[in-house]
Amino acid sequence: MKARFAQITGSVTAPQGFRAAGVFCDIKRLGTGKGSDKGPKRDLALIVSDAPAVLAGMFTTNQVCAAPVKLCLQRVRAGVGRAIVANSGNANACTGTRGLRDAEAMAAEAGRQLGQPPEQVLVASTGRIGLPLPLANIRAGIRQAARLLGSSPDHAAAAAEAIMTSDTRPKQIAVEFKLAGRPVRIGGICKGAGMIQPGMSATGQRPAARPRHATMLCFLTTDAAIGARALQAALEQAVAQSFNCITVDGDMSTNDTVLLLANGLAGNETLEARSPGLKTFQAALNHVCLELARMIVRDGEGVHRVVTVRVSGARTAADADAAARAVANSALVKASWHGGDPNWGRIMDAIGYSPARVVEAKVDIGYSAPGSRRILWSVRRGQPTRATFAALCRAVAPAEFDLHIRLNLGRAGAVMYAADLTEEYVAFNKGDVTNPTALGG
Amino acid sequence: MKARFAQITGSVTAPQGFRAAGVFCDIKRLGTGKGSDKGPKRDLALIVSDAPAVLAGMFTTNQVCAAPVKLCLQRVRAGVGRAIVANSGNANACTGTRGLRDAEAMAAEAGRQLGQPPEQVLVASTGRIGLPLPLANIRAGIRQAARLLGSSPDHAAAAAEAIMTSDTRPKQIAVEFKLAGRPVRIGGICKGAGMIQPGMSATGQRPAARPRHATMLCFLTTDAAIGARALQAALEQAVAQSFNCITVDGDMSTNDTVLLLANGLAGNETLEARSPGLKTFQAALNHVCLELARMIVRDGEGVHRVVTVRVSGARTAADADAAARAVANSALVKASWHGGDPNWGRIMDAIGYSPARVVEAKVDIGYSAPGSRRILWSVRRGQPTRATFAALCRAVAPAEFDLHIRLNLGRAGAVMYAADLTEEYVAFNKGDVTNPTALGG
Repeated sequence: MKARFAQITGSVTAPQGFRAAGVFCDIKRLGTGKGSDKGPKRDLALIVSDAPAVLAGMFTTNQVCAAPVKLCLQRVRAGVGRAIVANSGNANACTGTRGLRDAEAMAAEAGRQLGQPPEQVLVASTGRIGLPLPLANIRAGIRQAARLLGSSPDHAAAAAEAIMTSDTRPKQIAVEFKLAGRPVRIGGICKGAGMIQPGMSATGQRPAARPRHATMLCFLTTDAAIGARALQAALEQAVAQSFNCITVDGDMSTNDTVLLLANGLAGNETLEARSPGLKTFQAALNHVCLELARMIVRDGEGVHRVVTVRVSGARTAADADAAARAVANSALVKASWHGGDPNWGRIMDAIGYSPARVVEAKVDIGYSAPGSRRILWSVRRGQPTRATFAALCRAVAPAEFDLHIRLNLGRAGAVMYAADLTEEYVAFNKGDVTNPTALGG
Repeated sequence: MKARFAQITGSVTAPQGFRAAGVFCDIKRLGTGKGSDKGPKRDLALIVSDAPAVLAGMFTTNQVCAAPVKLCLQRVRAGVGRAIVANSGNANACTGTRGLRDAEAMAAEAGRQLGQPPEQVLVASTGRIGLPLPLANIRAGIRQAARLLGSSPDHAAAAAEAIMTSDTRPKQIAVEFKLAGRPVRIGGICKGAGMIQPGMSATGQRPAARPRHATMLCFLTTDAAIGARALQAALEQAVAQSFNCITVDGDMSTNDTVLLLANGLAGNETLEARSPGLKTFQAALNHVCLELARMIVRDGEGVHRVVTVRVSGARTAADADAAARAVANSALVKASWHGGDPNWGRIMDAIGYSPARVVEAKVDIGYSAPGSRRILWSVRRGQPTRATFAALCRAVAPAEFDLHIRLNLGRAGAVMYAADLTEEYVAFNKGDVTNPTALGG
């Protein structure tokens, strides 16, 4: 499909009527001002719509879900939002009733500073699990952020930095497209590098027949005018083909959250389920979510190679998803990607133990450049091809490549955006018990 | 239960009427005699019963299963065996019809050398997937092994060495017990270090509601007189509480095989389903299988720490198993074990995304020495206890410890024997593409 949208600079403040800020309020209690030699990394973000906004959200389906997720689940039901307040450094997860009170207190403080009802303030947290929030620091951070709000790309970039944890770089995007001649924009920021295999739903409930699936947070803004139902449906579709198709380590977080605020200031005719402009909006939203999701995989902890696993010819969509996830999460397959080893035996092994129906003698396995249809097949109908080991090594040598798996049993397909498994991932996540404040959630 | 058996020296040749051999026949084609500086590691094992033996087996439930597994599945149905021939260095998996012919040729050659029908020869292979067997080398190895057969512990040890791949040490055990005054013995050897999370069944078919679960091979011998049905049932119970409860990397192999030959030479009254002696036999077999299974985890690729994950209070047995497996296979939990980090947040996260029913506010998490009931609780009813970080670090510092997870929702339990995730595991499994013969299966 030809893109009907253009990528532009900036992110969450690119659409009309949105302001943002990112500040340092020492949530990890490192001692104020004593951050890295580059100065302390920001740790609290505030995103505000100047007009009441329609709200949509998707959340972790982990049964152990963080207090801010529980709060957002209530807020999304009402469908109206004005602001998002988010912190890094502490997940406010496994914090019991105190955690819920703290999440509410975050929303209340932001509401007070912005002159808005607390019910229209969304909350998100990411970081270490099981520690109470340092609420005094957070309140001070919210007050500071509310004073610093602005709509420049730098303001959005400060918010993107504030939600980073083990991320090595902020993740931002914005696009512009036209609806009946009127320019409309969507912007987004996200974070995530480990504990990444989101499996989000709109209700936090796991849909039946959905396999299990880290912390990723994503905040999206648009000035499109769009109805609440259409917005939620669009977000569900966009997340299904992006964040729910990535994996770094196969661990689904307690805090995964995607929030989308639509304030209507573009002045287009309000989009509803059957509006002609909805396809354009959806395509742009899908692009924004997929690009942000891929930034997460590329910035995964210790990641050297990013592999797009493309399964086709599965009997059912669930089978395709299961086969792709088994490969994308196999420690042995991921280690071989790190080594540049085109080890198709491990791929056959992984699809074979997946819940997907597989017939060995029908399986094709091959490699291509990202998005290319020029596939070098290593296995056809279950048997190795004449492709040389050297040629296969060249195919898996680039930092990004596509892995094609054809089951040849049906017509269903699935795509997973996956990462290799490296010594650096292990070294990072084994932590440093002599420095507990450095331990990740 | 008080053990009614004694551990003795030796392994598969400890029971009466069994002989074994292990030879080097250069299955990896390194060039004869050019192995390590310690001399070439043996790569072909032969185990023979001097009397016709009742046969039981358990096999990988991977849909992509190796040719020798397919052959054994046929043999086990007949229920009678005389010999096992096994090679390392090549898995004979994903080798199509040629692979099946090669497996049959291995059995035929062994039958010829032993003067036994080929239908009573079992075959097993482990090593690289997708390469044809070097049949001339294998035939030469079988001929040499048949000449060298003997019943000393050294003969059994040579067989144990011959099935090793990435194993750093041979794995052997033997026990003796009495049935109505008569001494009876069970011996076993096994191999396995990576691609380890067996999920075996008697038929290679996955039982419903059994989660997915590397190459492990185990060959067991006994001189007990026992009926075929009782033997298969006893093996299924023993494997269910041992090999099917271990995981190194969560990858289930194409070749997992457990074979048990019972030749009756102990002269006890034949054991059947309701025989009074069956409990004693079962307890001894369970011990043999569990000890061998734990040797596999301890010798796992790059493994520094072995953790016994004990889930209790689950609603159902399937829930208990699912929660234990989610923890035992979480990259983040395993990396924290490697770091000596008592990161209970990652454990809560893993049980929360598992398919098991979990209520955060009911969960207890604690640590003990192996097998001890003196538990240091880090979490009670979903909330951190007053246990200090230093005390928890001490609890997870030993090379082996037990992790206790109480879901407090029901009465079902499960145990998984798990390993940490280390930089060495990744370094080993990323392989060395400049030296393809060193690449593992």
